[in-house]
Amino acid sequence: MSDPLHYLVRPARMQFRSDNNATIHPAMLAALADANTGAARAYGEDEWTKRLNAAFAELFGDDMSVHLVATGTAANSIALAALTPPWGAIYCHREAHIETDECGAPTFFSGGAKLVLIDGLHAKITPEGLREAMARNQRGIHSVAPAAVSISQASERGACYTADEIAALAEIAHGAGLALHMDGARLANAAVHLKAEFRDFTRACGVDALSFGATKNGAMAAEAIVVFGRGREEVVARIRKRSGHLLSKHRYIAVQMLAYLGDDLWRANAARANGLAARIGAAAGDWVSAPVETNQIFIKPGAAKLAALRASGADFYDWGPAGSGDARLVVSWDQDETEVDALCAVIARLRA
Amino acid sequence: MSDPLHYLVRPARMQFRSDNNATIHPAMLAALADANTGAARAYGEDEWTKRLNAAFAELFGDDMSVHLVATGTAANSIALAALTPPWGAIYCHREAHIETDECGAPTFFSGGAKLVLIDGLHAKITPEGLREAMARNQRGIHSVAPAAVSISQASERGACYTADEIAALAEIAHGAGLALHMDGARLANAAVHLKAEFRDFTRACGVDALSFGATKNGAMAAEAIVVFGRGREEVVARIRKRSGHLLSKHRYIAVQMLAYLGDDLWRANAARANGLAARIGAAAGDWVSAPVETNQIFIKPGAAKLAALRASGADFYDWGPAGSGDARLVVSWDQDETEVDALCAVIARLRA
Amino acid sequence: MSDPLHYLVRPARMQFRSDNNATIHPAMLAALADANTGAARAYGEDEWTKRLNAAFAELFGDDMSVHLVATGTAANSIALAALTPPWGAIYCHREAHIETDECGAPTFFSGGAKLVLIDGLHAKITPEGLREAMARNQRGIHSVAPAAVSISQASERGACYTADEIAALAEIAHGAGLALHMDGARLANAAVHLKAEFRDFTRACGVDALSFGATKNGAMAAEAIVVFGRGREEVVARIRKRSGHLLSKHRYIAVQMLAYLGDDLWRANAARANGLAARIGAAAGDWVSAPVETNQIFIKPGAAKLAALRASGADFYDWGPAGSGDARLVVSWDQDETEVDALCAVIARLRA
Amino acid sequence: MSDPLHYLVRPARMQFRSDNNATIHPAMLAALADANTGAARAYGEDEWTKRLNAAFAELFGDDMSVHLVATGTAANSIALAALTPPWGAIYCHREAHIETDECGAPTFFSGGAKLVLIDGLHAKITPEGLREAMARNQRGIHSVAPAAVSISQASERGACYTADEIAALAEIAHGAGLALHMDGARLANAAVHLKAEFRDFTRACGVDALSFGATKNGAMAAEAIVVFGRGREEVVARIRKRSGHLLSKHRYIAVQMLAYLGDDLWRANAARANGLAARIGAAAGDWVSAPVETNQIFIKPGAAKLAALRASGADFYDWGPAGSGDARLVVSWDQDETEVDALCAVIARLRA
Repeated sequence: MSDPLHYLVRPARMQFRSDNNATIHPAMLAALADANTGAARAYGEDEWTKRLNAAFAELFGDDMSVHLVATGTAANSIALAALTPPWGAIYCHREAHIETDECGAPTFFSGGAKLVLIDGLHAKITPEGLREAMARNQRGIHSVAPAAVSISQASERGACYTADEIAALAEIAHGAGLALHMDGARLANAAVHLKAEFRDFTRACGVDALSFGATKNGAMAAEAIVVFGRGREEVVARIRKRSGHLLSKHRYIAVQMLAYLGDDLWRANAARANGLAARIGAAAGDWVSAPVETNQIFIKPGAAKLAALRASGADFYDWGPAGSGDARLVVSWDQDETEVDALCAVIARLRA
Repeated sequence: MSDPLHYLVRPARMQFRSDNNATIHPAMLAALADANTGAARAYGEDEWTKRLNAAFAELFGDDMSVHLVATGTAANSIALAALTPPWGAIYCHREAHIETDECGAPTFFSGGAKLVLIDGLHAKITPEGLREAMARNQRGIHSVAPAAVSISQASERGACYTADEIAALAEIAHGAGLALHMDGARLANAAVHLKAEFRDFTRACGVDALSFGATKNGAMAAEAIVVFGRGREEVVARIRKRSGHLLSKHRYIAVQMLAYLGDDLWRANAARANGLAARIGAAAGDWVSAPVETNQIFIKPGAAKLAALRASGADFYDWGPAGSGDARLVVSWDQDETEVDALCAVIARLRA
Repeated sequence: MSDPLHYLVRPARMQFRSDNNATIHPAMLAALADANTGAARAYGEDEWTKRLNAAFAELFGDDMSVHLVATGTAANSIALAALTPPWGAIYCHREAHIETDECGAPTFFSGGAKLVLIDGLHAKITPEGLREAMARNQRGIHSVAPAAVSISQASERGACYTADEIAALAEIAHGAGLALHMDGARLANAAVHLKAEFRDFTRACGVDALSFGATKNGAMAAEAIVVFGRGREEVVARIRKRSGHLLSKHRYIAVQMLAYLGDDLWRANAARANGLAARIGAAAGDWVSAPVETNQIFIKPGAAKLAALRASGADFYDWGPAGSGDARLVVSWDQDETEVDALCAVIARLRA
Repeated sequence: MSDPLHYLVRPARMQFRSDNNATIHPAMLAALADANTGAARAYGEDEWTKRLNAAFAELFGDDMSVHLVATGTAANSIALAALTPPWGAIYCHREAHIETDECGAPTFFSGGAKLVLIDGLHAKITPEGLREAMARNQRGIHSVAPAAVSISQASERGACYTADEIAALAEIAHGAGLALHMDGARLANAAVHLKAEFRDFTRACGVDALSFGATKNGAMAAEAIVVFGRGREEVVARIRKRSGHLLSKHRYIAVQMLAYLGDDLWRANAARANGLAARIGAAAGDWVSAPVETNQIFIKPGAAKLAALRASGADFYDWGPAGSGDARLVVSWDQDETEVDALCAVIARLRA
């Protein structure tokens, strides 16, 4: 009775913790069953994988290679390990997933490469930030060798790079002999926001290697390493194999991705999540601390309001350094609309 | 007409290439669908994973930890990396999967450990072989440090270690301060052959870490690293995470394993495959080059007969060094009985 | 004639580039010759090494181990690799030698540890800076594991930590289960400044592992890894061996260090260099950008004056990020006093 | 009195343990003093290093690079790491120093490469042995990738490869895309035996990278990595730096090597040691278990005689697997001739 939100707490779960908490899309689950028919060659020599390769070629053009893995950390780390020597420097944002959430995986896979951190609004790096970082600590043989730039699309603060912004970073990178990697764990959400085809803001802008994520947007466990151009296939294949990421029953990862690309399932899922997130963003108004462009909403309502929001039953992560007051709400592809309604109602009350 | 086997070639596929080519057991596929209900904590903090841990505790007792991964190479490599320093030596059979089929993964994961190879009949190592290998090249700081022994149950030639044999190897290993690892990619097939519970020929015999495989025996992609005793959980968890093998939607690997353990599905699948293999072994008679104890049959019928067998439509691998004349036939859990009938018939004709 | 400094340019070399450019002290060179008598056991099993161990025990007490190597990068990297797991975080100053000048060596030796950078005046880290860095990005298994703190004594800006400052950092580190490493490439210079015995500001303050440098202060190539307490000897010895840093003719590195410690040669050399540096610091007056406590002088005289200083024949490095205007002058143990006189005269003119 | 050899035990030391126990040649020691004059650029940018490069160019021709390090393990490991990817296989003899005495260093430096062991008389590998090893375990992506062959000149049993033998191995290696490395820890002794110039049995025969040793033959600590052709300089330089093997006071390693090459000092030292070894070999007669071609003598006199030899005061290593009965005697460049006389006398008595 003393809790004015009591009626919300029990009926609605208001789970906005992570899109990793979501389910598998029925179409992808069905694809597993459809492929479950008789013996098939292991390790990617099956017919579904062949079709998957063709599907990616349609998206991105020829002269590229696709390598499926089960996790985003594997995708990022293998891609980066193919772009940098063990003594290389990888430039990324301070909040990049590869820096904060992969327990050093890119360094492990590459045999030692260093992540050089760049600040930037909404977890995006700018040409100035990149240039400045590249100018620091250039002592020839004594310092690590600039090797790659990695950006997240969407960023870890839910912001998207425009095609022009990506091209500008690619130009700087390539001009200095560095490769450009894109962590696309939420690539579909970015594509929906940008109203663009995948190719337009990846390969067409100079991206050299792409972690093409599907897991957060509906798959069970399916991520693709897409490497543009030729010459790195063997290296990627070797690193994938000896890191234990070449699945034996490979068809089952291939069909998830086929279903994801078919009928633009990726687009429907991402559009739904982005749309619901926009509603929450609108409800949150001046609490919002970063542009709500994808399925993530960052809010900074002050400690008391944040506590009240949580007490209302909403589940989410605090974000950023301890005490920053920032919190992250993530809408999943399968989010129940009633949860969003409930959350918006709670926020409205708290803001009133 | 000139081919007396022509009627077999088309109707029967006779796929005996690998149990990696098999499908997912319907019960495990159904388990995926059953778990596909609403949000669940990621990274193994879900309810299914909790139940899975309990199921393993029932199998193996308390004071142990379970860590799921999607591939056998990951399971072996992570387990071994937790048992050896970077300068360690891991003793294993020359034909061990970790030596021949993982592209150096155990060395990669461990930061450099060396596999020291031991010969032995039917891909099993003996106490004598182990002792002799451990006595070689002991130059203190100048040579690598003995750290672990790894055996495959069943072996890469389809043979099983008895509980006594394992205990004897464990005694030697432990006596010298080495840990004992078991690669159980086909553990269920071995258990069926031994008519023993898992615990009886693993933990009870001194095994320290076990790669508990389910993929070859009916799962989509599910392997468990089981570490007996306490103190290594953090190390295993860290290595799993930074090698990209901690799945975000972890429930879907947990439920595969739960279904595998429930109703002794593992036993039914392995018993079926072993039984069919025994039939083939009986048909192959003196062609057989290793005891047919599990779902693998090794034959050495001479080059002409082998070519004829292949020409009949049977699909399988040549095995061993080039020119050895050995071939491997593997029966999968879902093998069509008519394929086995057909194969036996072909073999009978060729042997007649 | 148009150059008022022309008389200086030729006679004096004014080499203040690095103490790495210095010669070997005659006593250390003589020690090589003295030890050059007949066969001696290799790899540190000789009599000189035994005496060296005793000399270090006298300096630092028992229950510690000493491991000689030929370079400071090896000393730092091996020491750190013994203090951190491959997934560990090492906290250090942004300008630390291990970060800027070792081409990623600590990460290579440790199998992947990450350097987490801290800002701080005069290249020293403070308790606040350390606490703040340790609070950042603590996401359990998803982020790297705090493992060690590394400080440079003297710092890369020539400043010294007092015993109290070190004890404060050690308390924070140990309180969180982290080890404390000290890069003592210029330890002797710091000891002279602090008017303290080595032990007083290392082991007595909680330092766990020390890179004890002699090369910059008069040796040919001799650095000691001193590990306090027991339990890490084997690890250090293994890493030293397999990184190729266990010298076969080990006596010749031991006798350099013996000569260095004998008759307090280290003190005389450092006192001389510090004293000459103080003279330059006094001459530089308000150009000075960091306290001149050891043999390094940092100046920030503006671009024009800096160019003039260089044009006068003085050889030194620009320091810090490009365009910072900072420059570093280092006095070597064997610096010719006339060079110092000449430099001071040039500076006086430029400042007049 | 009961010991007929008592008169030998005390006066003569009979140290034949290792050429690592030897002293520095006076000319090399003098070279250190000669270079000890004033400031010199660090890290190999000095004049002596420039001259050293020229000296090597004279020996081996242009289009190659030289990189000095202080230990043979570093030379071998860095050279190999520049020839193989982390997933590479390095073919070498089972008794190769890189396998038995470097604690896994080549694997550490290369980020994981595997040593594949080959048997062969007198620790030499043959074309047949190499071909057979290269044919084993070729499973594409699943097995490690053949990358390099490493041979020791002289071998670890004191035998030398002829130029023709080396060319034959190089042809096989190159034909399969593998590089050829030579561990020349005792290259000078081999050159003397072969009566050949260095180039004739290295570069001219197809060797791609050479560990050119001087330490065992009179230096204090000086080994050169010589890489033939262009394109690998940066990789070698990077690996040397980040493994801590780029010496700061680099001139002192350069001048050792300059003195070694000057006046054919290397030849005089090696010729002396080889000659004394030949005398011991002649004395040992049918005890000898490998051709005495360099400064090593391998004997197999039976357990009793071996014990008697040791009891006489001779110091040497047992060799090979425990119980093999083999022993190794090594003559150093500075061996006292009276020691050789004494040893020969003891052997003569024991054989009488």
